Amino acid sequence: MIDCIIIGSGTAGVSAALTLKANGKDFMLLGSPALSEKIEKAESIRNYPGLSNVSGKGFVSALKEQLQETEIAITEEKATGVYALNGKFGVATQKGNYYESKTVVLCCGVEAVKTIDGEAEFMGRGVSFCATCDGALYKGKTIAVLCTSKRLEHEISYLADFAKKVYLIPIYKPVEIDGDNIEIVRKMPIKIEGKTRVERLIFKDGEMAIDGLFSLRESQPPTTLINGLETENGHVRVSRNMQTNIDGLFAAGDCTGRPYQYAVAAGEGNVAAFSVNEFCKK
Amino acid sequence: MIDCIIIGSGTAGVSAALTLKANGKDFMLLGSPALSEKIEKAESIRNYPGLSNVSGKGFVSALKEQLQETEIAITEEKATGVYALNGKFGVATQKGNYYESKTVVLCCGVEAVKTIDGEAEFMGRGVSFCATCDGALYKGKTIAVLCTSKRLEHEISYLADFAKKVYLIPIYKPVEIDGDNIEIVRKMPIKIEGKTRVERLIFKDGEMAIDGLFSLRESQPPTTLINGLETENGHVRVSRNMQTNIDGLFAAGDCTGRPYQYAVAAGEGNVAAFSVNEFCKK
Repeated sequence: MIDCIIIGSGTAGVSAALTLKANGKDFMLLGSPALSEKIEKAESIRNYPGLSNVSGKGFVSALKEQLQETEIAITEEKATGVYALNGKFGVATQKGNYYESKTVVLCCGVEAVKTIDGEAEFMGRGVSFCATCDGALYKGKTIAVLCTSKRLEHEISYLADFAKKVYLIPIYKPVEIDGDNIEIVRKMPIKIEGKTRVERLIFKDGEMAIDGLFSLRESQPPTTLINGLETENGHVRVSRNMQTNIDGLFAAGDCTGRPYQYAVAAGEGNVAAFSVNEFCKK
Repeated sequence: MIDCIIIGSGTAGVSAALTLKANGKDFMLLGSPALSEKIEKAESIRNYPGLSNVSGKGFVSALKEQLQETEIAITEEKATGVYALNGKFGVATQKGNYYESKTVVLCCGVEAVKTIDGEAEFMGRGVSFCATCDGALYKGKTIAVLCTSKRLEHEISYLADFAKKVYLIPIYKPVEIDGDNIEIVRKMPIKIEGKTRVERLIFKDGEMAIDGLFSLRESQPPTTLINGLETENGHVRVSRNMQTNIDGLFAAGDCTGRPYQYAVAAGEGNVAAFSVNEFCKK
C-alpha cells in the first residue's frame, strides 16, 4: 500500500508532494494538470519569499516545471469520497477508481461559494458531487445542478442526457450551455429538505421539487468528502502539525483557514508531509 | 510608534517583512545584510515550491533582491533584550539603541549549540550576550566566553582588551584569535553557579572561577531575550496564528520548532505578519 494520497494540486498539494518525494515516500497526487485555476488568476504575487513580484501564471509555470524535474506525476482525477478504514484510507474518484493509502492529505482549497444547508447531510441520499458517478441514477428524473465554473459545463451536458429536467443554478458567467430540458435558475437556494432523501430545494421566496442535487464545484468542501471531519468556522480544524481530528488524515492550505496565502499553503503542505513521515514510522 | 519589530533576517523574518510591507505596516527588520549564514550554507534546497533545486546562496540572493525591490531596509543590529511594557514593546540592541513598537515577531532561528544550564537565569547578573554593551564592566576581571562562530571573534578581541583573563570556549574551528590573556578551553561547561551573580562554571570534571560569562551566538535563544516566554522542548510555544504566550509577541520559523524547513519558515512569517495586522486593529 502506498504511504499517502494528496487530494488537490494547489500550492499546498504541490508542496506536500515535493517534500514527500524528497523524503522517499510513495504517494499519489490527485489534481489537475493545470494545477490550480485560482492561482493562475492571480495578477501579481508580491510577498512570496524568493519569487519577486511573480504573476499567478508565472507561479503555476514554476510549480509545473518543478514537478516535472522531480518526476512527480499528477493523477488527473477528482476525489469524490474519502473513507477512514481500519488503519488505512480508501479514496474514490469521479472516474470510478478506488485507491488505498496509509494516510491522506487534504489540500482541497476553499470554495468561495458556501455550501447549501443540507449539502453534507444528504450526500449519498440525493446529493452528489460527481456527474459521471451518479448521473445514470437520475434517468427520467428532475434534478438541480449547482455549478461554480464554466469548465464544469460538460458535466451538466452529461447529466442532461439522463434527466428529464435540469434546473441549472450557475455561479459563474457567461453560461454557454443550453438544452431543451435545461432551465437556468438565477437565485441561490438556502436549504435542502426531505425525509430520508432529497425532496425539495428551498429558496427565500419559494421551493422547488427535485429528485436530486448535483453540486459541481472546482474545489470540494472537505466535510462532504469524509464523514466526521471536525471544522471550525467552515475550515478543517488542524493542530500545528496539520493533523485533523481523524488519525492519519492531515490537511494543508486554504482549507485549514486564513490567511489564504501561497507562502502559508507551501509551509503547511511541507509540515503535513513531515507529519505523514512520522505517522508512517509508527 | 511603529507597528512591529522583526527580530531576525532569515526566511521567516524576510517573509514577515514582505507581508507587513504589502499590508502597508510600519516596521523595522533587525538582522544581517547577509540575511542568514545558515541558509547560505545549504548546498541545495529541493522542496521549496517555486524555486527548483536552488542553492542556499541562490535563495539568499533571491531574497536580497526581493527586499531591495520592495524597498525593505535591514537594520544591522542584534537585539539583546525584548521588554514587554504596558501595551508596547521595547527592544534593546548591541549598538546601545533602544526601539519601541506595538508588536514584536521573533524570527531568531535555532542555535545548534544548546544553552548552558543557568544562562537565562543569570542574564544581567554576570551573563551577557553583548560584548560591546557589557565588556567594559569586566575591566581587570576573569571571564569565560562561549562563542559559536569565527565571525564573532572580533567581539572576543574587544573583551580581551578589558578583561584580565579570558577563557575562550569555541564551538567552531579553526580558532584564529590569540592573545596573552586568552586561554582556549576545549570542553563544554554544563552549568553556571553562583549566589546572586555568576561565580563558577561547572564542568563534568571540575570547575572554574569566573566573574562573568559572555555567550556569543549567531542566533540568540529567545528565552534569553525576553522574560516569561513559554517554550516546549526548547522551542517557543505558539498557537496556529503564531501568537506566543505574551500578548502582541509573535514568533515564526525554526525557533518555533521542527520541521526546520524554508517553506515552513516562509509560511509562518506570513501568518505572523497577518496576526500583527489583526493585533494592531485592536
